[in-house]
Amino acid sequence: MEGIMIERDDKRALNELRNIKITTNYIKYPEGSVLIECGDTKVICNATVNDKVPPFLRGKGKGWITAEYSMLPRATGTRNMRESAKGKLSGRTMEIQRLIGRALRTGIDLDKLGEKTIIVDCDVIQADGGTRTASITGGYIALALAIDNLMKKNRLKENPLLGNVAAISVGIVKGEPMLDLKYSEDSVAEVDMNVIMNSKNEFVEVQGTGEEATFDRTELNKMLDLAEKGIKELIDIQNQAIGEGINEI
Amino acid sequence: MEGIMIERDDKRALNELRNIKITTNYIKYPEGSVLIECGDTKVICNATVNDKVPPFLRGKGKGWITAEYSMLPRATGTRNMRESAKGKLSGRTMEIQRLIGRALRTGIDLDKLGEKTIIVDCDVIQADGGTRTASITGGYIALALAIDNLMKKNRLKENPLLGNVAAISVGIVKGEPMLDLKYSEDSVAEVDMNVIMNSKNEFVEVQGTGEEATFDRTELNKMLDLAEKGIKELIDIQNQAIGEGINEI
Amino acid sequence: MEGIMIERDDKRALNELRNIKITTNYIKYPEGSVLIECGDTKVICNATVNDKVPPFLRGKGKGWITAEYSMLPRATGTRNMRESAKGKLSGRTMEIQRLIGRALRTGIDLDKLGEKTIIVDCDVIQADGGTRTASITGGYIALALAIDNLMKKNRLKENPLLGNVAAISVGIVKGEPMLDLKYSEDSVAEVDMNVIMNSKNEFVEVQGTGEEATFDRTELNKMLDLAEKGIKELIDIQNQAIGEGINEI
Amino acid sequence: MEGIMIERDDKRALNELRNIKITTNYIKYPEGSVLIECGDTKVICNATVNDKVPPFLRGKGKGWITAEYSMLPRATGTRNMRESAKGKLSGRTMEIQRLIGRALRTGIDLDKLGEKTIIVDCDVIQADGGTRTASITGGYIALALAIDNLMKKNRLKENPLLGNVAAISVGIVKGEPMLDLKYSEDSVAEVDMNVIMNSKNEFVEVQGTGEEATFDRTELNKMLDLAEKGIKELIDIQNQAIGEGINEI
Amino acid sequence: MEGIMIERDDKRALNELRNIKITTNYIKYPEGSVLIECGDTKVICNATVNDKVPPFLRGKGKGWITAEYSMLPRATGTRNMRESAKGKLSGRTMEIQRLIGRALRTGIDLDKLGEKTIIVDCDVIQADGGTRTASITGGYIALALAIDNLMKKNRLKENPLLGNVAAISVGIVKGEPMLDLKYSEDSVAEVDMNVIMNSKNEFVEVQGTGEEATFDRTELNKMLDLAEKGIKELIDIQNQAIGEGINEI
Amino acid sequence: MEGIMIERDDKRALNELRNIKITTNYIKYPEGSVLIECGDTKVICNATVNDKVPPFLRGKGKGWITAEYSMLPRATGTRNMRESAKGKLSGRTMEIQRLIGRALRTGIDLDKLGEKTIIVDCDVIQADGGTRTASITGGYIALALAIDNLMKKNRLKENPLLGNVAAISVGIVKGEPMLDLKYSEDSVAEVDMNVIMNSKNEFVEVQGTGEEATFDRTELNKMLDLAEKGIKELIDIQNQAIGEGINEI
Repeated sequence: MEGIMIERDDKRALNELRNIKITTNYIKYPEGSVLIECGDTKVICNATVNDKVPPFLRGKGKGWITAEYSMLPRATGTRNMRESAKGKLSGRTMEIQRLIGRALRTGIDLDKLGEKTIIVDCDVIQADGGTRTASITGGYIALALAIDNLMKKNRLKENPLLGNVAAISVGIVKGEPMLDLKYSEDSVAEVDMNVIMNSKNEFVEVQGTGEEATFDRTELNKMLDLAEKGIKELIDIQNQAIGEGINEI
Repeated sequence: MEGIMIERDDKRALNELRNIKITTNYIKYPEGSVLIECGDTKVICNATVNDKVPPFLRGKGKGWITAEYSMLPRATGTRNMRESAKGKLSGRTMEIQRLIGRALRTGIDLDKLGEKTIIVDCDVIQADGGTRTASITGGYIALALAIDNLMKKNRLKENPLLGNVAAISVGIVKGEPMLDLKYSEDSVAEVDMNVIMNSKNEFVEVQGTGEEATFDRTELNKMLDLAEKGIKELIDIQNQAIGEGINEI
Repeated sequence: MEGIMIERDDKRALNELRNIKITTNYIKYPEGSVLIECGDTKVICNATVNDKVPPFLRGKGKGWITAEYSMLPRATGTRNMRESAKGKLSGRTMEIQRLIGRALRTGIDLDKLGEKTIIVDCDVIQADGGTRTASITGGYIALALAIDNLMKKNRLKENPLLGNVAAISVGIVKGEPMLDLKYSEDSVAEVDMNVIMNSKNEFVEVQGTGEEATFDRTELNKMLDLAEKGIKELIDIQNQAIGEGINEI
Repeated sequence: MEGIMIERDDKRALNELRNIKITTNYIKYPEGSVLIECGDTKVICNATVNDKVPPFLRGKGKGWITAEYSMLPRATGTRNMRESAKGKLSGRTMEIQRLIGRALRTGIDLDKLGEKTIIVDCDVIQADGGTRTASITGGYIALALAIDNLMKKNRLKENPLLGNVAAISVGIVKGEPMLDLKYSEDSVAEVDMNVIMNSKNEFVEVQGTGEEATFDRTELNKMLDLAEKGIKELIDIQNQAIGEGINEI
Repeated sequence: MEGIMIERDDKRALNELRNIKITTNYIKYPEGSVLIECGDTKVICNATVNDKVPPFLRGKGKGWITAEYSMLPRATGTRNMRESAKGKLSGRTMEIQRLIGRALRTGIDLDKLGEKTIIVDCDVIQADGGTRTASITGGYIALALAIDNLMKKNRLKENPLLGNVAAISVGIVKGEPMLDLKYSEDSVAEVDMNVIMNSKNEFVEVQGTGEEATFDRTELNKMLDLAEKGIKELIDIQNQAIGEGINEI
Repeated sequence: MEGIMIERDDKRALNELRNIKITTNYIKYPEGSVLIECGDTKVICNATVNDKVPPFLRGKGKGWITAEYSMLPRATGTRNMRESAKGKLSGRTMEIQRLIGRALRTGIDLDKLGEKTIIVDCDVIQADGGTRTASITGGYIALALAIDNLMKKNRLKENPLLGNVAAISVGIVKGEPMLDLKYSEDSVAEVDMNVIMNSKNEFVEVQGTGEEATFDRTELNKMLDLAEKGIKELIDIQNQAIGEGINEI
């Protein structure tokens, strides 16, 4: 029953985000760089501008955004073998980096970007649930800083940014829909959903999975309501960080 | 405007499935084998029963379902290089086979299966859109035939099947939500969504992506309504094919 | 003694081919496509025309024919791991696809083909012995259909086909030379020989191996006589299928 | 002439280390974790304790120390492709991680460690010269914290640490021997030498290379004198950090 | 016309072998070691005895013979990239090493060998045609020396050798069948055939290929006659070398 | 005590090299080819001249020297798996071939070489300690022969050789510094050092490692004295071999 809510590990309300901390211009070399901390999840997002585009876009005057995602071996409780040592990326890694790239591309006008590729590297140095959504939320900030950098150097005629893209996880834990799951919640969740939205309150991507359980239309709607609330807050945080990051330099 | 609907290539109504044809016991060796044809999309689904389980399940008395997905090089209009020749699976392949495995696992009680792995191989011999959803819908039939096979050989105490799992794609093409996109529609769709449901009308997985566009809550709901209708029809087709396949042997 | 012949599983005479069935234009996209069934061995042969040639032929006005061979994991009684998942082709696969390519190249005038590559993909969906010889026999039909396709589109000045190439296995089982071994025979054969010939009754390739035994000159000659008879029949079947396949379109 | 010394970018004396900053217990999961900053070079060193040993040590009651080294793609001025995406480690990476492991093993009594492996992961998040020596200096601190952790949990009978191991680079730039080269110096150095020493003022490893030039015995001796001075200072810094790190928890 | 024979580069008769030189016990560590020189073709053949057998033979009391084949990068006129650097074996290498292994296994009673694997490494240090047949002829000598070594150490109850295995190439050059082709002949041959026979004058393997041309039954017979003559001579040379090699130690 | 020196396996004095034997023009195809034997260590060094340079040097009018190193599987007492079969180079191999290339580059004026790459392949056919230093010493001879070859063919305006580069190992065994360790000494050495010097008595590279022990400044100096003596002798041997090799052709 909704009246009797379960208590969360960190005392948060069911519709409450974890504490978010953004450090802009974290690494000195990239065109855009951010350390995003969502509770104990910490991701370094670095945006690199490259004057080449992938083969399928050559000569079309259009740009591209792509992403790569990785975790340090001890970002988690038990050490994971490096994918460089295994000699190949896991399915999970590829799925996540395709998702991040797809999401960030909706935030930019690729024609206005022109023949450039922006690579957004998301490296998780500490993981506590929600690393892919933190990568998208932080990745957008790194992207915006890189675009500002290009604008200041007159390497773009028009600003190609179309508006924020941010992401959050929602899920159902012990029958209760809740926002922004940390690892202890995520690992016991019946349903896990990642929602990506933009500043026009539209969906960019919705991925809901119930491996241990299934979910009905009513539960889907409750989760989408929670995600919408969280993403509005994240967009405010993004905009404040971008403003500060731009002024720092 | 909804009153003036766009005409589809193959004259189907917007909420109409393509013609579905199921050939059970298609290949003679597997424990369960099906050729599923959804319009011009043709997928061979073979279920293999194996007495080993992955390391994380050893000694727990519990089984596992996993899936592999591949396309013949000329399943499509232009030839794709083989992943065996490239020496690695693409991100797309890994994402799809993880999805198929996850979906099929919700249709079975892994404790009742016991220490067995069922591998569902989905090999696309001709592709015309919707290959991953056809793989899930056909894969469930191959799985059910393999379970029937195990039951007949007294290798299971209780039937572990929990009920059908089926999948369909929906999308928005030229502003119009529609069911079961063929390739010519899929390649111009603004939004593409794969919906997996079970026989209790619950969601197993929802994956909606708008790379070229975004979508709002109303559009999401229309797409989910279409998917629900299509999946009910697919479940009827699955049940008829399973009944026939069981009697053939 | 030859008078007392051993009985074969399927009652065939020692010099009798299995039943051959050819379905032309099996897959809708390739320039030439065939499903060849030799008894329970079933191979999809798809020919793709490509306007590039390998580096060693660039700028020489000469074409190339190459082949790739693969088996579905459950084409056989026990499941084989995919070569794409292993990350490399087995020695057996490479040996077979080099053989198919070499054989088919003798059937065509590469100068008349001009700077084009034709890739013949042979995918075994069910295996019951003789998959490499069925791939060559079926591959030639797919190649001939692709050439007809190029001729009809005026992409060739002259027909480059030099005449049929077909292949069959022969072997010695329990001391008895016999034609067209099915798996149950092949797996107990003392000697296994693959013979590839052309429509001028000449040898293209002869590969005879006695891993468990050796063979003398008399036995070699008997096997070659059987092969010659079988290949004449296969060439008639090829020509009939090519004629029908050309008229279908 | 030695009397007229060249001025360094950052005004340091020729025998002066960059500013060193150590943050102990930087990542929350590892048994020992440190962020070491040497000027603008920043390396996360995480020590993981594992109860298995490599095959060649099994059943011998002896432990092992190994190291892995990696750089984030944008740790440097231009982006480096990930080794996980390339599918293999570069020669440089392998050489460095073998060096780190070899160096750290001299700081510990492997018999007293018992059948355990400690893996020291060194991940460079920002590089400005001297990443391999910073990895060794920081890696020793992470190792010491992990050992303290094992001692507190009574997982070791005796403390296996034999004393500090630290490393520094020295080189000859424009004819002038100098200590602790930053990237702008390293990239124009005639001679580059990495020196690893222990708390008994003994050499653990000396690697001097003159790709653009060669060096004589006098120059070698000057470089070793500089290294000796730097390493004494680093050992003091290590000891202070270890003391603080132990008390923090 | 047969009466007017073509002259060979090195003045040999059409049915004459190149000069063969065998250095036994060439490398000091292997159980059997030989340098075989056939004209300018030089191959080091080393036989290693290993107490393990491949998984499919474990616990069956039966042994195994396997072979590996490689060429030094400059064994040929132009340098070949190392297969270790490419990260995979070529189809040619795999085909050759499977052939060598298969051939040598016919020379030994695997039951009498017991649970041992003998690996025959064939490393071509200089290539001038016929490297695979030289590997088989030399490999048999290395194998025989290794067996003698095992007999002397009482590691075998009975001698498992069944008799010599030797191989030679034959071919048709400018219409003329000839024995033992050197590279300048092989590269212009119309037909190339490798024949492997044993000391009972039986065929072990026959592989005849006509990539540029085809061949008829008469030509096949002439080539087999030449091969038979050459192999008899090779077997005498093998036996003399084995005798000397055994006495050397 | 230094007065009582330990006796070496092969009765050599502590400052005595093993017997060195050089066979020039060993393999017939390479531009420079040498078999170097240092006691029982035998390495084939082949230099190949290539008209391409690596991407980072294109269009700069400058050449490059690179090296590759490999061991035959049975170059050692127990068989090592081939790196081609493993699909990747070991860290040890990469470290050694980078070292050889770096060393040989100091012996040549890359501007005078012009846009050419010389690849020096070092293939160890028998190993008894000191394979990397033998590769450098022999590799320089192969390089010098290849340069002579280019000079004779007028493919170079000026001789780019700057003078000899040679290498030797030194170490401390049972407390005693000694020159040119054979495997039985190397495997029990407390300290192992590779020293590379040129004909001006300057250091090219110094790599000293004490995995089992450490070493002090006095010991370092003694080892460097031994190395200096050995390298002077090696340079004389190199010069004699180069002179003979040049005259042979």
